[in-house]
Amino acid sequence: MPEKITIVIVGGVAGGASAATRARRMNEAAEIILLEKDEHVSFANCGLPYYIGGEIAERQKLLVATADLLRKRFRIDVRANQEATRIDRAAKQLDVRDHLKNEDYTLAYDKLILSPGAAPLVPPIENANAPGVFTLRNLADADKIREHAVKTSARKAVVVGAGFIGLEMVEQLHRLELKIVLAELQPQVLPPLDPEMTYPLEKALRDREVQLYLGDGIAGILTDERGNASGVKLQSGEVTTGDLVILGLGVRPNSQLAQEAGLEIGATGGIAVNRFSQTADPDIYAVGDAAEYPYGPTGKQQRVPLAGPANRAGRLAGEHAASGASAEMPDVQGTAIVRVFQQAAATTGLSVKMARKLGIDAWSVTIAANHHAGYYPGAKQLVLKLVFAPETGKILGAQCVGVAGVDKRIDVIATAMQFGGTVRQLAGVDLSYAPPFGSAKDPVHMAAFSACNYLDGVDLFLDSDANLSGQQVVDVRTEKEVSAKPLAGADDAIAIPLDDLRERLGELDQDRPTVVSCGVGVRAHVAARILRQNGFADVQNLSGGALVREWAIAQRTAE
Amino acid sequence: MPEKITIVIVGGVAGGASAATRARRMNEAAEIILLEKDEHVSFANCGLPYYIGGEIAERQKLLVATADLLRKRFRIDVRANQEATRIDRAAKQLDVRDHLKNEDYTLAYDKLILSPGAAPLVPPIENANAPGVFTLRNLADADKIREHAVKTSARKAVVVGAGFIGLEMVEQLHRLELKIVLAELQPQVLPPLDPEMTYPLEKALRDREVQLYLGDGIAGILTDERGNASGVKLQSGEVTTGDLVILGLGVRPNSQLAQEAGLEIGATGGIAVNRFSQTADPDIYAVGDAAEYPYGPTGKQQRVPLAGPANRAGRLAGEHAASGASAEMPDVQGTAIVRVFQQAAATTGLSVKMARKLGIDAWSVTIAANHHAGYYPGAKQLVLKLVFAPETGKILGAQCVGVAGVDKRIDVIATAMQFGGTVRQLAGVDLSYAPPFGSAKDPVHMAAFSACNYLDGVDLFLDSDANLSGQQVVDVRTEKEVSAKPLAGADDAIAIPLDDLRERLGELDQDRPTVVSCGVGVRAHVAARILRQNGFADVQNLSGGALVREWAIAQRTAE
Ligand SMILES: Cc1cc2nc3c(=O)[nH]c(=O)nc-3n(C[C@H](O)[C@H](O)[C@H](O)COP(=O)(O)OP(=O)(O)OC[C@H]3O[C@@H](n4cnc5c(N)ncnc54)[C@H](O)[C@@H]3O)c2cc1C
Ligand SMILES: Cc1cc2nc3c(=O)[nH]c(=O)nc-3n(C[C@H](O)[C@H](O)[C@H](O)COP(=O)(O)OP(=O)(O)OC[C@H]3O[C@@H](n4cnc5c(N)ncnc54)[C@H](O)[C@@H]3O)c2cc1C
Ligand SMILES: CC(C)(COP(=O)(O)OP(=O)(O)OC[C@H]1O[C@@H](n2cnc3c(N)ncnc32)[C@H](O)[C@@H]1OP(=O)(O)O)[C@@H](O)C(=O)NCCC(=O)NCCS
Ligand SMILES: CC(C)(COP(=O)(O)OP(=O)(O)OC[C@H]1O[C@@H](n2cnc3c(N)ncnc32)[C@H](O)[C@@H]1OP(=O)(O)O)[C@@H](O)C(=O)NCCC(=O)NCCS
Repeated sequence: MPEKITIVIVGGVAGGASAATRARRMNEAAEIILLEKDEHVSFANCGLPYYIGGEIAERQKLLVATADLLRKRFRIDVRANQEATRIDRAAKQLDVRDHLKNEDYTLAYDKLILSPGAAPLVPPIENANAPGVFTLRNLADADKIREHAVKTSARKAVVVGAGFIGLEMVEQLHRLELKIVLAELQPQVLPPLDPEMTYPLEKALRDREVQLYLGDGIAGILTDERGNASGVKLQSGEVTTGDLVILGLGVRPNSQLAQEAGLEIGATGGIAVNRFSQTADPDIYAVGDAAEYPYGPTGKQQRVPLAGPANRAGRLAGEHAASGASAEMPDVQGTAIVRVFQQAAATTGLSVKMARKLGIDAWSVTIAANHHAGYYPGAKQLVLKLVFAPETGKILGAQCVGVAGVDKRIDVIATAMQFGGTVRQLAGVDLSYAPPFGSAKDPVHMAAFSACNYLDGVDLFLDSDANLSGQQVVDVRTEKEVSAKPLAGADDAIAIPLDDLRERLGELDQDRPTVVSCGVGVRAHVAARILRQNGFADVQNLSGGALVREWAIAQRTAE
Repeated sequence: MPEKITIVIVGGVAGGASAATRARRMNEAAEIILLEKDEHVSFANCGLPYYIGGEIAERQKLLVATADLLRKRFRIDVRANQEATRIDRAAKQLDVRDHLKNEDYTLAYDKLILSPGAAPLVPPIENANAPGVFTLRNLADADKIREHAVKTSARKAVVVGAGFIGLEMVEQLHRLELKIVLAELQPQVLPPLDPEMTYPLEKALRDREVQLYLGDGIAGILTDERGNASGVKLQSGEVTTGDLVILGLGVRPNSQLAQEAGLEIGATGGIAVNRFSQTADPDIYAVGDAAEYPYGPTGKQQRVPLAGPANRAGRLAGEHAASGASAEMPDVQGTAIVRVFQQAAATTGLSVKMARKLGIDAWSVTIAANHHAGYYPGAKQLVLKLVFAPETGKILGAQCVGVAGVDKRIDVIATAMQFGGTVRQLAGVDLSYAPPFGSAKDPVHMAAFSACNYLDGVDLFLDSDANLSGQQVVDVRTEKEVSAKPLAGADDAIAIPLDDLRERLGELDQDRPTVVSCGVGVRAHVAARILRQNGFADVQNLSGGALVREWAIAQRTAE
């Protein structure tokens, strides 16, 4: 029987509950106290939008492990409505506020695990707390929004912030037949992605008559005569009405408890920890949205407020606290996914935009391919952007958007990143293939092949939003394709169908910098190879072809 | 412009056509001759069953790249109906038989790429070539089967061999409303998998009234008075009638051309090659079903007759032949997938059965989990078996079966294997999660966690088909669950619901070897931890719980 120690855990959901159960499995003798300032422990935060929209019909489904189960099965002393208010590190004790009894008490610990999560950002604007303005973090929030959206006669909602949660809320409120306005400070939805990759999401939103205000932040909440929210004022001066306002502006880590106890806070505002999730005080661990993780693409510590890392880090911290040892918390890649109506968009690691911001040299290729064999019915096109280091070919990140197979491609790439993989190694992964499931050369391979071609100088890729003026642009699609949809932002593109190119080389100037383009980049790749081997010294392939070019130009115009 | 050399390619489909196009992209000056003994090049072999069943409605869809396109776009000299019959290595030339003109001629090469594929095995039995007996390798075969199945009044088919192609044929012939008999020499369908993992497939077959003869090989073909196939005789003496017989018995590599030229043949019967797909003669390459690959799980060369490796190796060989250099062909893991009605079954690397046969020490864990968050509607259970090395934790293989999300899990694990990954590393992969797509702790994580628990002695797993007699078996499910479905092959299991276990420890003998079990293994894991920490020295968790136990016992009985 292991040591009889007291483990106190602050926060009873993703990180905290995961720590508690693993701690119990590793140590039957320990006293394990789980403090949760709100009513519920172990609920499915990530399910809240779907409960609001009614897609998850039963509220009870959101209670993943009840307090009762945690008590009976795991002998965890679950204390809901009890808030940790102060850590006394010297005395190894915690001040706790019992919100039910309205009392304070002190709790001694041998090991303390902090998983207090994060709080939705509420901007310092007028009427930010008016009735009808909501943030979404827990079940009580969800109940309130659902009540307001379903039970009142709300007809129109303003969602502020087009990140993961904002987009999920748009989808789910649309499901409730509300008219939706979506405002976002960035000039695009889903800011973690590169702008062109978000085009299909914006299209999905516009197709459902979601009114988009991009590049426009919130300036204030409008209220009616009773003081209820009736709309928002944007920084541009634009005003839009609405019966409820959802703020989905991101989160602020709940790091104050740690900070007040003198524990180190990292550069990104989360509690600083080592690979065992130990803070500067080895008896105090921190995990989840309040903490930082080792981030794969940069090798630095940063916050990654997602459920997977919180769960895994919580589990390891629980084990370490309970037994004195555990595996190290591996790098986190920031892999995330969201569904926006039929479209899925996923990302892992760095976008090109983020890499630039960090001063990291990054190349990218964008390919479009079917999610399974094209000859098998039901194939859907997905677009995959692979970001990598020009010197080493190390994979830095990827983004994928489409209606099917998006999660699989990002998970495969995220797995390769976990091993510090390069695009060369990615080109060799041996994936499952039968017509209903994939292709003999999977989209992941196509992206990796293209990246290797880029690294080897076999084919150089040009960003899809590049300025093409002054370059010799060759569009190698068929006449029919070109006239149906001319290449965006390339008015004097020379159209030569690929299959005629060798005969018509004389029409081109081999000394001019040349950009080739086609539908999605495949034919342009063949064309680029023909040109290069025929004396054209400077040839680039427009990444993602006319398809992604259209997205990029639309997004650039939007900015 | 690169060197003007002559590259001759034997075989115009997966490996051959991939080599040809890449060769052209790397070398505009080369003469590239693609020899194909049959009518069609570049067709979708893997789509043939779905064309026969009518799921792929247009035959033309199967022609991935037409000869015309290869000629126009890639300037490839496509020579259909022309068969390479002899290699003269000293003279660097090839004898070719033109089947249309019924002529022979000689062809000089600088580089020769062999991708002649494999031939379906036809056993040396009576009437093996009777009309109505079919094998399936190319379009002509598919046309014949389709003709026979659709246009004649065929009502019943006998499929011999329950491998990937056999199972696809069963599914597709069932779609054509034929009654089906499926015979397989092995005591299970899909022999690459461990027997218990195939239970859901067998169930799917039986549910559709496919008559199964397992552990029974074919002894002869029965014919009617006109000499047409009318059924099969099995080795057991059993006789079954049928209007057509499909032989899906695996393939024999077309290595004779190479062998006759004195090139080395590997231990598994494929042409031996190095990492550049070069045979013993550096000007002759071999790829695809006729060749061997470096196989990840063993580090040895072996045949892996699948389209992905053929395509990738062909591409690299084409590049090497055309330019004198290429990346090395990476390890192949043997990743494969098949759909059998609603069920998907996938595998990568070694099964436990294969590992045993090879004398490789292998441990395994089997878990069951939802393919996405259980609280989000539509979650489907999948079962995932992870096979790994006991000393190092190196992943040796995995198998997965279920109706959704199977390909993703196997692809993630196959990717980890590509990096020589261990189950410890797998436990840390950062996968995308939102409720419609996955879980915060994905099934891949659960399997990896369990494997780590096994390695660390936190929880030891017992194979689901183990003999439990003599052991103290504790079933920790609820009374209701136990009475609804008692644990198979464990008549004197002691039922103690998990939540009562701590109070009822006195009912158990802590000195007896103890096996715990529950629904799928999760509660048993908690129970095992309680027992171990309460003085029970020898505790094992029945892998996959009552669910997989039922499968294993059913399959054991079937043998
Ligand atoms: C609506 C929504 C949707 C989401 N969707 C996804 C998704 O699809 N995929 C994904 O990966 N992530 C998603 N997330 C993020 C994910 O839920 C979080 O990353 C994860 O829950 C973080 O775990 P945590 O333990 O750090 O915080 P939480 O799970 O929030 O738990 C922290 C708990 O600590 C309590 N607490 C705070 N301070 C104290 C204190 N002083 N004393 C006692 N208790 C305290 C809080 O009340 C809270 O219940 C979503 C989040 C939300 C809100
Ligand atoms: C029905 C069916 C379904 C399949 N399904 C899948 C699947 O779902 N997933 C998967 O990964 N794999 C699948 N495969 C396997 C896959 O098709 C093969 O692994 C792949 O085609 C092998 O490529 P290859 O180039 O070696 O051979 P092939 O693609 O068969 O090409 C070889 C060609 O060479 C020609 N040839 C042979 N000898 C000569 C000669 N002397 N001269 C000239 N030409 C010659 C042959 O006629 C043949 O056309 C399937 C195969 C079949 C038959
Ligand atoms: C559910 C919760 C309380 C954790 O409880 P838990 O008992 O650790 O349950 P999990 O499902 O996470 O873990 C399953 C355990 O069974 C093991 N396991 C899984 N399948 C198994 C099988 N078939 N056989 C044996 N063991 C198995 C796992 O290894 C793990 O044990 P370990 O941690 O000791 O290795 C916590 O994750 C939680 O509160 N989640 C909801 C909140 C949340 O995550 N929100 C964000 C996402 S919506
Ligand atoms: C189709 C076939 C002829 C190969 O032709 P291919 O021109 O090499 O076509 P692929 O789709 O395989 O390759 C696409 C090329 O475009 C590149 N590419 C893909 N997407 C791209 C994009 N968006 N931008 C730029 N390049 C791209 C790839 O890198 C690859 O080029 P590379 O090999 O020079 O690196 C051959 O694979 C074949 O015959 N297949 C059918 C037979 C078969 O495989 N059967 C078994 C499975 S059913």
